Parts: sequence; C-alpha cells; structure tokens
Amino acid sequence: MTGGRLSRRSALGLIGAAGAVGVTGGFAAGAARDDDAEPQESVVPFHGKHQSGITTRVQQHLYFASFDMTSTATREDLKSLLADWTDAAARLTQGREVTTEGATGGGPYKPPDDTGEALGLEPNALTITFGFGPTLFAADRFGLEKKRPKELVELPSFAFELLEDRFSGGDLCIQACADDPQVAVHAIRNLSRIAFGRAQVRWTQLGYGRTSTTSKSQSTPRNLFGFKDGTANVFSNDDSDLATWVWADGSDQPWLAGGSFLVARKIQMLIESWDRVRLEEQEAIVGRDKGRGAPLSGGSEFTEPDFDVVSTAARGPAIPMDSHVRLAHPTQNGGARMLRRGYNYVEGNNDLGQLNAGLFFLAFVRSPEQFVGVQRSLAKDSLNEYIRHIGSAIFAVPGGIRAGESIGSGLF
Amino acid sequence: MTGGRLSRRSALGLIGAAGAVGVTGGFAAGAARDDDAEPQESVVPFHGKHQSGITTRVQQHLYFASFDMTSTATREDLKSLLADWTDAAARLTQGREVTTEGATGGGPYKPPDDTGEALGLEPNALTITFGFGPTLFAADRFGLEKKRPKELVELPSFAFELLEDRFSGGDLCIQACADDPQVAVHAIRNLSRIAFGRAQVRWTQLGYGRTSTTSKSQSTPRNLFGFKDGTANVFSNDDSDLATWVWADGSDQPWLAGGSFLVARKIQMLIESWDRVRLEEQEAIVGRDKGRGAPLSGGSEFTEPDFDVVSTAARGPAIPMDSHVRLAHPTQNGGARMLRRGYNYVEGNNDLGQLNAGLFFLAFVRSPEQFVGVQRSLAKDSLNEYIRHIGSAIFAVPGGIRAGESIGSGLF
Repeated sequence: MTGGRLSRRSALGLIGAAGAVGVTGGFAAGAARDDDAEPQESVVPFHGKHQSGITTRVQQHLYFASFDMTSTATREDLKSLLADWTDAAARLTQGREVTTEGATGGGPYKPPDDTGEALGLEPNALTITFGFGPTLFAADRFGLEKKRPKELVELPSFAFELLEDRFSGGDLCIQACADDPQVAVHAIRNLSRIAFGRAQVRWTQLGYGRTSTTSKSQSTPRNLFGFKDGTANVFSNDDSDLATWVWADGSDQPWLAGGSFLVARKIQMLIESWDRVRLEEQEAIVGRDKGRGAPLSGGSEFTEPDFDVVSTAARGPAIPMDSHVRLAHPTQNGGARMLRRGYNYVEGNNDLGQLNAGLFFLAFVRSPEQFVGVQRSLAKDSLNEYIRHIGSAIFAVPGGIRAGESIGSGLF
Repeated sequence: MTGGRLSRRSALGLIGAAGAVGVTGGFAAGAARDDDAEPQESVVPFHGKHQSGITTRVQQHLYFASFDMTSTATREDLKSLLADWTDAAARLTQGREVTTEGATGGGPYKPPDDTGEALGLEPNALTITFGFGPTLFAADRFGLEKKRPKELVELPSFAFELLEDRFSGGDLCIQACADDPQVAVHAIRNLSRIAFGRAQVRWTQLGYGRTSTTSKSQSTPRNLFGFKDGTANVFSNDDSDLATWVWADGSDQPWLAGGSFLVARKIQMLIESWDRVRLEEQEAIVGRDKGRGAPLSGGSEFTEPDFDVVSTAARGPAIPMDSHVRLAHPTQNGGARMLRRGYNYVEGNNDLGQLNAGLFFLAFVRSPEQFVGVQRSLAKDSLNEYIRHIGSAIFAVPGGIRAGESIGSGLF
C-alpha cells in the first residue's frame, strides 16, 4: 500500500551541476549569491562562507518563523536541535525530503518523517537562514552569556511604534525563502516538527512579493503604497559594500564571523488613508516620483537624490525635509546602508473592514546601529502618518558552514 | 513632479494577439479556457460566453473577497457598482490600470485612481469572477426577489462544522486569481476602493498553491496533508461534463445562463494531529497511496478506484468504507461531480502554537445539490477527525458578457 515512493531528488537531475557545488565540502566562493537574475537558479547551495538567503537573489515568497525554546529545554537540547535543523535544512534546500525516509519510505507503521506537500515540487531556490535572539544568551538558560555579541540587545523604542508581543522577539529564527510558497511553508513546517519538545513557534510571517532586490539586474519592486522601494539597497555583487555594511568580522565573537545581524519589523500600512492622499502629496512624502521612482530632484530611478535642489513650485527643497527618501538616505545617516530583504504581506481585513497589510521589513546589517540610526532619523518622516511598526525582533545570524558542520556549533 | 507616467500597457505589446480576443465584442469561443498548460498564457480574455476564472487554467494565487452592500445602498447603487466593477475588471485583467488615468495620469491634485503597486508587473493571467449571494435577493432590499435562482439559498448544516460568521456569507463575491499574488491583491484592493460607500468587504481569503487542476496537462498538486487532491475533477476540455456539472442553462433565471453556482468553504486542517498519524492509516483515511496518489485498489493516479477490491491485509475492502475517496467519489453520489478550484492557505499560528492552515475549497457546480449530496456523504468520512469547516458561502455566478455589457445587467 505504500508503493510509489516518490523522491524530490528526481528534480535534481536537471540541475545537478549547480546543486553539486553545495556538497563538495569546501567554501563555494560566492555560493549564496546571484548576480544574474536570468536564468534564475533553482537550487541554492546550503554550505559556504556565509549562510544563503542573505545575498541570494531575493526569491518571490517568504515564510519566517520565530521560535522560543521550551521552558524545560537544556543546553543539550539546543545543541541537538541546531544539529538536526542543519541536517534537515541541508537536505530541503537541495530539493530532498527532510530525511532519507521522507514522506513514504519509512514503512506503514510510523508517521512519515516528511509531511509530503512538497513532493514533486522543484527546489524553487529555497534558502533556509538561521538566527539567534538576545534571549537565547540570557543568564541561567543555556550557559551562553559569554557568547553573546555585545550588540545583540533588544532594539530601543522608536517614535510611532505600537509593538505587539505576538509579532515580536524570539530565541531563534528561521527565514525560509523560495519561489514557490508551498516549498517555503513546507520547510518551516518540517523544521517546526523537528523542534517538537525542544522549541516551539512564537510567531510566523508569510510574505509574498519581494519588496527589495539585491542585484541591479532585478527590477525594483513596488510596495503597497505603489512606490518603488529599496532602490538604494546594498547589492550582492559589491564585496566592498558587503564587508562594510553586512558581514560581521568575528572580532567580537568568533562564531559570528561571516555572519550578520537581522532586524525584522512588521510595519502595518494604513492603506485606505494613503489611497486618499493626492498624488503630489504622496510623492512629496516619499520624495520620489510614483511612476519611475526617480528622486524629486530629477533624473531616473538610480539617479542619486540631490538634496540641495530647490523647487520654486514647492517654495523649498525639491525633496522635502520630512520626506522618507531624505531621512532614510545614507548621506543623512553617516553613510549607513543596509541589505534589505523585505516582503509585502496581506492578512485579510480588520474589524473596521480595513486591510491588514503592510511591509515585513527584513534588513541584514553588520551592526544594529545602522538600523537604529536610520530609524531614529525617521522619527520626523511624514510617512509616519500612514504606517505603524507593530512587530520587532533582532537576531544574530551566524556565518556559513562546511558540509558536516552544524549551524551555531561555535556557540558550544 | 509627476513625470514618468508608466502604463501597464507596455506589457501588452508582447502578447497582443491573445489580449485582442477580449475586445472584439463577440463571444470568443473557449475564451476562458486553457487546454494547454504549456506555454501558459499571460492574458486571459475577460469577455466571453462564460466568466473567466472558472474553466481557466488554475493560476498559482488567489485573493477572494466577500462584500456586503452598505446599509443605505440603493438598487441604483448596486447597478452602478456592478457597472463600475465590470469596467475596472475588463481593464485590470488585460494588464491595464484601473482607469485611463491610472496611478500617475490624473494630475497632482487628486488621489490617483490606481493604487499603483502592480505597475510594471505583467497581467499574470489575472481573472476576476463575480458572484451574488442569497442575501442580495432578500425582500425589501434591491427589488430582486423575483430574480433569485430557486437553488440560491444558504447551505444546510453539515456534520462536524464549526462555522464562523467572520468567514461566511456575503451579498457579493469577487474571486481574483493570478500567477503573481500582488496582481490578485491589487485587483481586489482597487475594486474595494471603487465600492466605497456602496459595498464593503465582509471577509477575504488569500490562497497560495492551487489544490486543483482543470486540465490533465497540469500536474495534480498536493494539499497540506501531503496527498494529491482533486484527481477526479471536471476538466475544462470536456464540454459534455461542463454542460452536465458546471454550466447553468438559464431555464430557472435567464440571467444565470452560462453561469454557475460557487460554493466556498474554509476548511481548517489539524496539521499537527495529522502529522502524528502513521502512513498506513493516513492512506487508509484518504483511500489513496501517498507517493503516487493511486487508489488503494491499485493502479496509478488516474486509475479509477475499484471499490469492490478486497484486501486480505486489511481484512476488508482495499479502499475502506469510511475513506475520503470512497465517500466523495461520483459513483457513491449519484454521479455528482464538481469543478474544484481551491487553494491552500496558511495564516500563522493559533494560541496553542498550532498552524492556522488548511484548504479554501472552491467548487463551481450547476446545482448546489451536487455539493450538498457529497458533503452529506462525507459525514462518515474518517478524515473528519483532522479537518473542521469554519467558513461557508454560496454565490450564483452569472454568465459571461460581451464588451459594452455589465456583469449582472440581467438582474435589472
């Protein structure tokens, strides 16, 4: 009755060369990177100097999960969980089932290891990226006090936030991105299953529609306010920028070398209010033109904004002092930039019939201060009338690993 | 400052021939149909004998909205709303902005007509399908008592349902399907905006991952229990089956000719419980093997189940008496079949940390009795231990229209 065992491996025959990079054991140079959006790779190597899912071409769908360790979990539980997660993630990202037995190969008398809903689906460029929250390093928990990166602390309060606990924090996080949402959901679901008894889901976020690009060869997408977003992103082909703004060097904690910090913010957008704003005001708030995404100082999308240009029509700066693009721009924030990797979300309607929708902001930064500085600048942002930060979390993202190693083994 | 107006029309240049079919004014034979999954069309004609989005190849994403007319809305409001929705839908499905002025062409001093987040995106096979709920025809509302199809009544109660008002009912519905979720969400958002003051959203459903196929050339997808679903669907290339099981002939209400009934059910799946069931039992509950989707009586996915086959191992029928495939099968239900078009959904986790996930079941039927009969059979389904129906709605779906006509004009 359990005939017809079907393996996801069949898909690998088609893309063997790319997939093989990840299992050679050494660091695959630039493994988790995609400078050429066309053709899009179907398998992203799991092993490498950095974790995949950071500089990887931004996939179309996200399923993000924050976990808390169970109240009785021990240091050994954490260690074994990370080892088990690593094994599973290495398989899943390569289009395999979660174990060798998978959904149908374990025989009739036990629950299948793999939940099966991704059988027959291609790997869809699945990446699985792990991170550790500040609470994981708290005293009297797992003996990791001395392994905490100095900068891994809860984010400070910012103007206009209305944070909810149910969208915030977490001991651990997993970011799963793929070009098919079922593949991303399958990954988180199976990793959650593996965690049973050791860690449990604290909150999750489904995102569709990337709002960022990590390569100029990908077109800049639009957010739910209809504007191009993330034009000034750190691009994955600029090693100098990545070294400056994204990768930790391990001088604080060696285990963080080649890693990064991940800032996650759930930003509700007040869609109906925004939709009643006249075009000129929308553009003044954002500081860009809506059609092309060009700064209001002139040019095209990738023209650098010129904050000194004066508009006679506006009787002041062409790019208003309280516009989003001015306040967020690196030149106004000591040069600070981030690698953004956010997604739009839509979750039905609230009790007033308004859309529950917005931006799930994800940024990878070498130091949380990059985010903190910009976010403080944004206190004056006229966009604040139309957005609310309702969730917040920060995680330290360890560096990549070789085959045979476990994510976070440097913690122990 | 509003330079750089950008039209979605540019995308049309690439697929002009297909798009043109929809604007010739006559019925495009087989317009809303796709018998060849490869290559997948990018533009689906809006006009035709039937509404698109029924026999159309099942797109990858769904955004479904149920609306109630506002308490003060008049018959004229309803009529004008349907006319405005028709105009917008005809444009949106062809990859155009919602009006000729769109997101950037209306000048700086008014809110843009189009919310803009789909600018630059291809049409992605967007279809927009309208339906009318029983409450729209109630006495003392819009004078439509005599236009109500006899069979358009609330569905009866079924075993094991736990229906919630916030996922059920509605005066009107719009099903938007597309291969890019942002395109489907953009459509519903802009149609909701148009409705302001006349109708408001009652509930919505985001679906990803089709769980059905309307053509054998599309592979059968898997539901969140990891099984192939919808194998016995009515296929869009079988005119005889469509005439028997899907299309209304208008003998009851002429305005329903070429239309159908749409049954929507939100079915929560108890994922964690299911995942603890051993493989043999999962297969016995479903009545199919998990790997290939073959019936337990033998063969392959598309082999007809043989309910008379006896299994010595099971000491009874190979396909158990209380299995889902037996109880749902046409031969056990007077031949009744449905055109299913459902989607998986995942909406985070509940207070117990369990997945809020399941199937948003959509079926188009010539008569609601097709659904009612099968659902009554399913009272004995052993799958009921693992699912809960939490939302329910029924709509009459009018036939297709010619260019220049409005959806539902036959009501007035």
